[in-house]
Formats: sequence, C-alpha cells, structure tokens
Amino acid sequence: MANKLSQRDQANLEVLSIFQNAKPAVVDIAIARDVIPGLTENMILHAGPPITWDRMCGPMKGAVLGALVYEGKAATLEQAADMCDRGQVVFEPNHDHSAVAPMAGVISPSMPVWVLRDEHNETTAYCNLNEGPGATLRYGANGPKVIENLHWMSKTLAPRLKLALKQGGPIPIFPIVQEALEMGDECHSRNRSALSLFIIILTKRLLATTLTKVEINEVLDFLVGRDYFFLNLTMPACKASWLKAEKVSGSSIVTAFARNGVEWGVRVQGKWFTAPSPVVNGHYFTEFTRDDANLDIGDSAITEASGLGGFAAVGSPSVTGFIGGTASELTNANLEMYEITTTESKHFKLTALDGRGTPFGVDVFKVVETGVTPFVTTGVAHRLPGIGQIGAGRTEVDTGKSLSMKAN
Amino acid sequence: MANKLSQRDQANLEVLSIFQNAKPAVVDIAIARDVIPGLTENMILHAGPPITWDRMCGPMKGAVLGALVYEGKAATLEQAADMCDRGQVVFEPNHDHSAVAPMAGVISPSMPVWVLRDEHNETTAYCNLNEGPGATLRYGANGPKVIENLHWMSKTLAPRLKLALKQGGPIPIFPIVQEALEMGDECHSRNRSALSLFIIILTKRLLATTLTKVEINEVLDFLVGRDYFFLNLTMPACKASWLKAEKVSGSSIVTAFARNGVEWGVRVQGKWFTAPSPVVNGHYFTEFTRDDANLDIGDSAITEASGLGGFAAVGSPSVTGFIGGTASELTNANLEMYEITTTESKHFKLTALDGRGTPFGVDVFKVVETGVTPFVTTGVAHRLPGIGQIGAGRTEVDTGKSLSMKAN
Repeated sequence: MANKLSQRDQANLEVLSIFQNAKPAVVDIAIARDVIPGLTENMILHAGPPITWDRMCGPMKGAVLGALVYEGKAATLEQAADMCDRGQVVFEPNHDHSAVAPMAGVISPSMPVWVLRDEHNETTAYCNLNEGPGATLRYGANGPKVIENLHWMSKTLAPRLKLALKQGGPIPIFPIVQEALEMGDECHSRNRSALSLFIIILTKRLLATTLTKVEINEVLDFLVGRDYFFLNLTMPACKASWLKAEKVSGSSIVTAFARNGVEWGVRVQGKWFTAPSPVVNGHYFTEFTRDDANLDIGDSAITEASGLGGFAAVGSPSVTGFIGGTASELTNANLEMYEITTTESKHFKLTALDGRGTPFGVDVFKVVETGVTPFVTTGVAHRLPGIGQIGAGRTEVDTGKSLSMKAN
Repeated sequence: MANKLSQRDQANLEVLSIFQNAKPAVVDIAIARDVIPGLTENMILHAGPPITWDRMCGPMKGAVLGALVYEGKAATLEQAADMCDRGQVVFEPNHDHSAVAPMAGVISPSMPVWVLRDEHNETTAYCNLNEGPGATLRYGANGPKVIENLHWMSKTLAPRLKLALKQGGPIPIFPIVQEALEMGDECHSRNRSALSLFIIILTKRLLATTLTKVEINEVLDFLVGRDYFFLNLTMPACKASWLKAEKVSGSSIVTAFARNGVEWGVRVQGKWFTAPSPVVNGHYFTEFTRDDANLDIGDSAITEASGLGGFAAVGSPSVTGFIGGTASELTNANLEMYEITTTESKHFKLTALDGRGTPFGVDVFKVVETGVTPFVTTGVAHRLPGIGQIGAGRTEVDTGKSLSMKAN
C-alpha cells in the first residue's frame, strides 16, 4: 500500500516544485517607484523582518539617512534623522514588496533596480544595484562619496545597463550561477566567476548599443573588481523563484533567511518568524575586531535557503580567504546541510561532489529535530552608522534561540 | 655541522629558483618567421621530441599537410604529402626553438605567435594561437574550413589582438593563472576562468584602440567558448620561465614533458629523454572509442612540469566533466605528485589545500625511486589525419617504460 502523504508533505512538495522549476531571468532595470508593488514616496524598504526606526541597528540607520539625502528629501543627515524621529518615514521589509537587497538592504523610491522575471511561475522580483566593496550605503556608510556614487550609478550606469539589456532577450540567471559554482563561486560571499561571465555577456550587448567605446569602458571600469555586483542578481532570481511558494499554506519549507541586524528572520508560508540576530563568526579586516561588528544583517541569506552560499561552499574553497576557516571545515559545514534539507537542488550541482545537487529545501522541523543550524556565509558591517564593511564570516544561528522562534 | 649539498642538489636548487622567480608576461603577437630563433622557410616545428616524417603519427602528419597548404607552399594536401615524402621539409621540435604548442603543435613560418617575455630571466618564448575546440589543425584536421579559420586568425584576429596588447604594458600570465586556480581551473585541460579573466583584460584594451565596436565584437565572438585559447599563453609562459634552467648542467629536474604522438619526451638539462607515448585513459566523445585514439601528443604537459594541470587538479573538480573520473580520484592523483616533486610552487597555490603550493619540480630520481608516474590531463586526437579531437583524459606514463628512458 502506498504511503499517504501528510498535508504538510504535500504542501512542501508543491513549494519545492515551484522553485525547482523556476526559470528566473533579468529582463530590465527600472526605477524602484515605477515597478516595486506598494512602494510609496514616503517609504523606505529595508532588509530582514519588520523593524521600527528606534530599534534599528547602526548600519541600517546609517543607510536610511543616506538614502533620504540621496532622494533629496533631506539636505543633511541630521535633517534626515529628524524626519525619522518625527515618524515621517514608513519602513517596510523588502521581502514584503517582492524585493530583496544585501546588508542594510535599503531601497528608496528613486533607486534603479534589477527586474527579475520568472516566466514559469509568472512572478517578478527586484533588487537594487550593488555599489561594490568598502564604505557603501548597504553597510551604513553615508558620506558624500557614497551618495555621489549612488547618483552616478542611477544617472549613468543604470541607463547604460538598461540599453545593453534591451539588445537581446531575458538573461537567465541560474545557468550563470551553475557555471559559476563550477568555477569556484558559492554565489553568496564569492561571486567573482559569476560576475566575470556576466561582464562578458553584458559587454557583447553593450558593443551592440549606440554607446561609445569610452562609455562602455566606463561601465567595465565600474564592474571589474566589484564581485558582489552579481549577488544582486542571484538574490532576486531566488526571490522570484520563491514568490509563488510563499502563498502555499501548510508548508514547513523555509523560503528565505533574512536579517535586519537585530533579528534573524525566517520566512515560511510568506510569514515572518524571528529570533535574535547572531554575531557573525568573522574574519575581520586588520583594523577591526568582533567588538566592532554589528549583528548579522541582510536579505542575502536567501541564497542559502535556495541551496547556494554556505549550502554550496564545498565547491568554493577560495571563499575561505574572505570568510576564514579551512577548506575541510567548509566542506563539513556544507555537507551537514543535507541533514536539514528535504531534497537536492535541480538547478545547482556540485562537481566537487561528483554532480550531486546542493542541499535544498530547509525544513524547519528538521532544523528543530537535528539541532543543526543553517550555515550562512556573509559580510560583516560595523555596528556604528557611516563606517561600512569590516569583515566577513559565517553565521551560525543559535539553536536554542531558533527553537524558540515565534511568529512576528 | 651543516649538510653539504651535492652538486646535483645545487644544480636543482638553481633550476627551481629560476622558475620560482620568473615573471613571464605576454608582450606581443608577431609572425613566427620574424621572431622564432632558427625557424627557416622550409621548416615546420612540431610538438614533442624529434621525429622524422615517416615515423609521425596521423594527426601530426595531418597538421603538417594542412600547414603546408596554409603557407601556400602546396596547392593540395596530396602535393604537400609529396613534398614531405621527397624530404623538402625540415622538421624540428618547438622545444628546441624556444617554442611550445598543444597537440600536433605545428608552427609554420607565417603563423602568428604569442610572444612571452620573462624579464627576470631575460628569456622569450613563443606559442601559436589556439584555434578552439573540435576539428582543428592541432588535432590533425586540415580541411578547407580549418585552413580558412587559420587565415582569419592570421589576417584579422592576430592584428586586432596585437593592437590591444599595444594599449598597455606587458600582461603578466602567472597572476592570471593563480586567480584561475582559485576559480576552478587547473590550467591545462580546464581554462575557462583564465580565459574569462583574460577576455575582460583584453576587452578593456580593445575598447581603447581605433577598432570599431563591430570589429571588437567579432574578436569576442571568436574568443568566448574557446576556453583553450588561454592554454596557449600558459604554456609559453612556462617555457619562458624554464628556458634559462635548460642550460644548467647536473640537474635532475624535469623542465618539460612533451609528446609527439609516438614518443613521450622528458626534458632535463635541455636534453630529450624518450619513452613510447602512452594511450590516454580517456573520456571519449559519444561516437568514438579508445581504438580511435592516437597515443598521447602535445607540448601542453609542460604545464604539469610547472605545477599545473594534473598537479593542480584538486582545485578543479569540474575538469572531471571533460577528462572523466571522480573528484576524489582527481584529488588523490594530484596529492600523489608531492611524492615525485622537490618543493611546492611559489607561483601556484591551492585554496582547496588551504593555500599549499602545488607540487613542483619533478625529480627524475624520485619518479624512478617511487614508481609514481606524472599525472597529466590532456586532450585526445583521432589517430587518423584530418579528423580532430575525439575526447580527453589522463595520461599515466608506464613506469617500467619510464625507468628505461634513454637519451634521444
């Protein structure tokens, strides 16, 4: 007699199937206010679960203030802080607006965003453009150079990339991610190969536009070395692939991990469950220590929920140069993820495991039963606003706290 | 009391130091006859140790005939064969002319060649331009399309690349190789990351030339997907780095493995030692079998003698998709190479081994004492002329035969 699937098992199968069959592709760059559903003029979107202004961590506050200056809504950071204190700004999570963004994850109405379309599931998701390494808005830096760079990206870079995208059809993201996995990326904290492949695709399209060679070279000057630029395509590709699954009730599969720098959020059935955000077990830049570190922050851990990042790290020993640890520690941590997942990815396969699919479909019940915590690779922000990135490392969510997660 | 080094140990230290301190860079593209020392008009250079026309294998004969047609010295392949039969062509190894080239390795006087300069050792080495995968001259194919492609490369591609090179200084090759090792290449049979990095460097320079965007895009159309294109830079970079070492007498360090499809050559002190060339333990394309395979051929195994290829394969599990086998077999075969080498590479480090240098400096005495044979990844040519590549795999030189190697 065939086993009868429980309602939860059936719901989980449906959720997993939605992602496993997704075909997300980048189709456009647009202005956030024109495309992100429900994004109003007085709203700023942020990473992780919902949080009020007074409870936000330093880097998120820094990013919010910088965004208000960038938007021209405040002339100074002080004026921006005053607006926030007076309750003139509405804050909502990216995830509740079909969007995702790394670290502080701030998306404001006039920012350019990638538009990712999954034709299979008929869903669309969004992400801002990655500014590159160092002192950047997403790490809470908000000085004049940060704002100037955001304006250049909006006025010069984004329109040129948009022109390039229009030279051909949608560019599927997961095949690039898979090729990058075969080239030593884990596609959360290491994205060099993915970006290299994408630069070559983009360049061929840029050469077909009316842009001059000088203008094209300016785009390449910006992209080369900004490896995380591609993360902002992988993340919304994952979000687009999960969006339909968020509406399936009865499932226990995690569709995203997302942190706001105070709380670690887990999304199941499109709802938020939260626990205190952990300290990152980090590899700090020379002048900083663990004491300088903000708690774990950013929407980027959607990659782990999708079978990437720490869940694909066995193929990326080079990421240890960034997050610390040894290659064998990385391998063991990755392999452990098969204990808390339901199946193996059909999109992402590891040549280091002879083609085995990455661990995919984190089941909250398996996490609780095994006590195994999700292995997430991530960057670390300084805890104070205005400074920026101070290192990178691995997030290990405290199991006891995970067990006591409650709906938010 | 300090140990006194034997004369051989001293010679070996000198040889290793020459390579470990080399800084080979690509400086130009030139026409073979203008730059390769001793290359005369009636000469054709080939891979591996010396061999006469009558003893050449099928693919090498095919490549020679194609080259004579390409040069305009023969109107037809039959006429070319007649010239060879009558002794009108002089054949010499690339290696004896500061050159290297993959597979049949044919370099004829009017072919464009990469010029690699090692300023540290004041040496210069050369290699032809890689035609890409499939039916190509280096695999012995010599039909009209093969010749036409060679002419396009000579008349269109090479001058454009030369223009690009002139837009900046020399491009150091080993830093690109190291970065590619961190991106899943082993830089003999897998070169995708190295080529991607090189394409990006080249593109920025191409954009600074007077070439049109259409002309630049034609170059990119050729390069993208022709992953082996970069092998023809890695190989002469290694050759340039060893050239001075070839003149050190008393050393037992291998400066190159090189095969002509009949004999497997080992270069020590600039002299040839040969054994019969082995069959490649191959992974054949669908329509071919081991019976179709030529014996091992090509100068490309200079990469293994330099600490790359099979000697760096642990970081390249994806190469198994091309050469066959499992990731753990690859790792074990790579690790075994530490038994026959003298030291670890200062140029090439493996993040999969937590930054350990690749096994470097094959000592012929260690090979004989341990019975461990060099692990070489390689392509496989059809044994008949005119067909081309039929697979890839790993060369395992028969130990017994290695032991009986004799000076040629």
